[in-house]
Amino acid sequence: MDRTVSRRGLLLGGAAAGAGAVGGALAHRWAAGAPTAPQEAAALPLNGERTVPFHGPRQAGVETPPQAHAAFTAFDLGRDVDAEGVRRLMRLLSDDAARLTRGEPALADTEPELAAVPAGLTVTFGFGPGLVERVDPDAVPGWLRPLPEFDHDDLDPRWGQADLLVQVCADDPVTVAHAVRMLGKDARAFTEPRWTQSGFRRAHGSEADGTTMRNLMGQVDGTVNPRPGTADFDHLVWREAGPPWLAGGTGLVLRRIETHLDTWDELDRPAREAVIGRRLADGAPLTGGGEHAEVDLAATDATGLSVIADFAHVRRSRTDDPEERIFRRGYNYDLRDHGTPEAGLLFASYQADPVRQFVPIQRRLDELDLLNEWVTAVGSAVFAVPPGCAEGGYVGDTLLEG
Amino acid sequence: MDRTVSRRGLLLGGAAAGAGAVGGALAHRWAAGAPTAPQEAAALPLNGERTVPFHGPRQAGVETPPQAHAAFTAFDLGRDVDAEGVRRLMRLLSDDAARLTRGEPALADTEPELAAVPAGLTVTFGFGPGLVERVDPDAVPGWLRPLPEFDHDDLDPRWGQADLLVQVCADDPVTVAHAVRMLGKDARAFTEPRWTQSGFRRAHGSEADGTTMRNLMGQVDGTVNPRPGTADFDHLVWREAGPPWLAGGTGLVLRRIETHLDTWDELDRPAREAVIGRRLADGAPLTGGGEHAEVDLAATDATGLSVIADFAHVRRSRTDDPEERIFRRGYNYDLRDHGTPEAGLLFASYQADPVRQFVPIQRRLDELDLLNEWVTAVGSAVFAVPPGCAEGGYVGDTLLEG
Ligand code: HEM
Ligand code: HEM
Repeated sequence: MDRTVSRRGLLLGGAAAGAGAVGGALAHRWAAGAPTAPQEAAALPLNGERTVPFHGPRQAGVETPPQAHAAFTAFDLGRDVDAEGVRRLMRLLSDDAARLTRGEPALADTEPELAAVPAGLTVTFGFGPGLVERVDPDAVPGWLRPLPEFDHDDLDPRWGQADLLVQVCADDPVTVAHAVRMLGKDARAFTEPRWTQSGFRRAHGSEADGTTMRNLMGQVDGTVNPRPGTADFDHLVWREAGPPWLAGGTGLVLRRIETHLDTWDELDRPAREAVIGRRLADGAPLTGGGEHAEVDLAATDATGLSVIADFAHVRRSRTDDPEERIFRRGYNYDLRDHGTPEAGLLFASYQADPVRQFVPIQRRLDELDLLNEWVTAVGSAVFAVPPGCAEGGYVGDTLLEG
Repeated sequence: MDRTVSRRGLLLGGAAAGAGAVGGALAHRWAAGAPTAPQEAAALPLNGERTVPFHGPRQAGVETPPQAHAAFTAFDLGRDVDAEGVRRLMRLLSDDAARLTRGEPALADTEPELAAVPAGLTVTFGFGPGLVERVDPDAVPGWLRPLPEFDHDDLDPRWGQADLLVQVCADDPVTVAHAVRMLGKDARAFTEPRWTQSGFRRAHGSEADGTTMRNLMGQVDGTVNPRPGTADFDHLVWREAGPPWLAGGTGLVLRRIETHLDTWDELDRPAREAVIGRRLADGAPLTGGGEHAEVDLAATDATGLSVIADFAHVRRSRTDDPEERIFRRGYNYDLRDHGTPEAGLLFASYQADPVRQFVPIQRRLDELDLLNEWVTAVGSAVFAVPPGCAEGGYVGDTLLEG
């Protein structure tokens, strides 16, 4: 475009061209490697350049070691969107997710340069019951519905069940902001945005790889968790039974759990450790050993009382039934910019069957878990996470082309 | 504390001990290096371990290369707080800031383990006119007052002038959350919290060191900026004249500038480039060269029109007066978790005299800067950033002990 025309057009308000075309053209220049990073970049590979493949039998973002930043965004389908609409939506989203995770601009990327730093970006899609019903009412798995009510919940519909979840994770906050915005634009014609929940962990490079995260209560959080890549993990997380379209997929439970830090901080450390059953310093069980030592639920102290109390979170959250286990991959949140601070955990757990695996744990916690005094679930939603897709396919094609 | 007693006390609600004592005891264990990082840590120094000295003739967080995350928190002094109260407050805050920046828990740290990752943490204090007046009405520099009104402003008092600013920056979001919370507790007895503004840039390790940041409009933002460590920078930023208590300090202008990304994205790229006067791809002037090439304001194109338009942001934001320059160290913000998304720039500029240096630039931008069509200042505040303090001293001691 001629600069003079452009400038005049601009002042006349006529320069609003199709951003899509610009983005498309740029994607090409991009692929050719247009902008180059400063010299020093050569020395060490930058974490910003790290990519996680989008395509594959399973969606990324579940087994992927948790990146530093996450945004869970949820949408409800527009009233008129039918199966064909869902198909177009998921094609669009999958295509752009694939591009962005490679460090390339989205198809109609309006800020293509912001896409150049993938920083381990993953985009994971989840379907709520409403979306699956819209496509095929018979395809809704029995567990894909809001969780039963729990006594200690104080749910706000603002963070409730929605039709579509887009989970965006990366080690860079600009990358997450950009991907969320681009994918949100893709969804715009088909959906109403419902909520966004943003969370964080330690930055990449802050701690040695593999260090278990701490939540804002100060606890080591995530010690006992199925290990990705093991048969145990595959069995607990990836679906084998149920509707065929979900084979190789999983179920996501996302609970927004507010933590009442001010009253929590009134407890002394031994009390706080008793609430969980583990030490604050290193996350080790109160019955001794290191962080990964077995918890000894039977151990008693000199006075004959259980070392791990009846009300302790680690006692309540485990059973003898090996099937009642889940994979936790949560994020902290801490919102202060809109008045009263809110902090807590975006509790995200992945399991093949939430009703069989998550609900019994949650029920036991609801019945007796001293932690309930300082934490309250204010949001809750369940999503079916379809299997991954091959290049040329899209997430949800097993349902929509089935 | 005996575990049995503790557990009973807990259930009876009697276990709320003085957190200060616990924190204090822990600080000692900490200094002795109690918890050790996993093995791999030995290989490469972790960015999480990086510390920036708190003490020194100048406060850190101005010349410091911008960390990935920032939180600007503002407070108003309680009605009854006198000079002695301010002294106690600043002592408390400075002591804890010094501890936290070393990677040690705050004095009464309730989550001491979260302090173990300084990740380049800096804490920078700024005084609003209200605080200085409370101590010594004669000590308020002439420029320490709200900026004049500008036509394009749409200021919300919610982000307005306050008595005390605490600027927390680090490469790790957990570190920032923890420091903000601990310093906020220190301030509690003396102040009312006023606002928090959280921002981010690229993560550490995402791009080569020294890469100029991009804002969420996609622009390279920060190219023409005084270089820390040069005489030019010292002259522009660090105060020499004025009230003696501020010698070695600076002035901070913090503007919350909302960017209207949806209408911005309706422009094509040439139009967007014309608005700034620089290329989106690499930030180079439209008159050619690389990012750091001189802008040629006199250049005309074949039709005789200026290449850098009259309305271009880079033309409007510079003058021939070398004194009218500022040091910009801004952060992006992008809030989505509370409904309607808000995105923009936490425009933070540092200059010895905001009225002499910042205001003329802002006035010219207000008169004519096409960028005004897509950005609106919704918050504005000015702070005097006192010089740094020596060990044993505290920020503000030049005012309070003067
Ligand atoms: C804010 C809320 C919560 C906090 C702060 C929290 C914190 C913790 C902590 C510190 C541990 C011990 C370390 C570890 O193994 O990770 C733990 C373990 C665990 N939590 Fe939670 N938790 C919360 C909510 C939940 C919920 C809602 C569930 C599921 C319904 C859950 C299930 C588990 C499980 C299964 C374990 C492992 C138990 C074991 O086998 O040892 N937690 N949690
Ligand atoms: C959201 C609002 C703003 C955006 C997006 C923005 C963006 C930019 C961009 C892209 C540049 C060119 C690259 C560079 O040198 O950094 C620039 C330059 C500059 N901006 Fe802004 N700016 C904003 C607000 C302001 C404000 C409020 C001021 C001061 C009142 C200001 C002062 C400057 C200065 C002094 C320069 C360097 C000009 C030169 O000497 O070349 N900007 N800005």
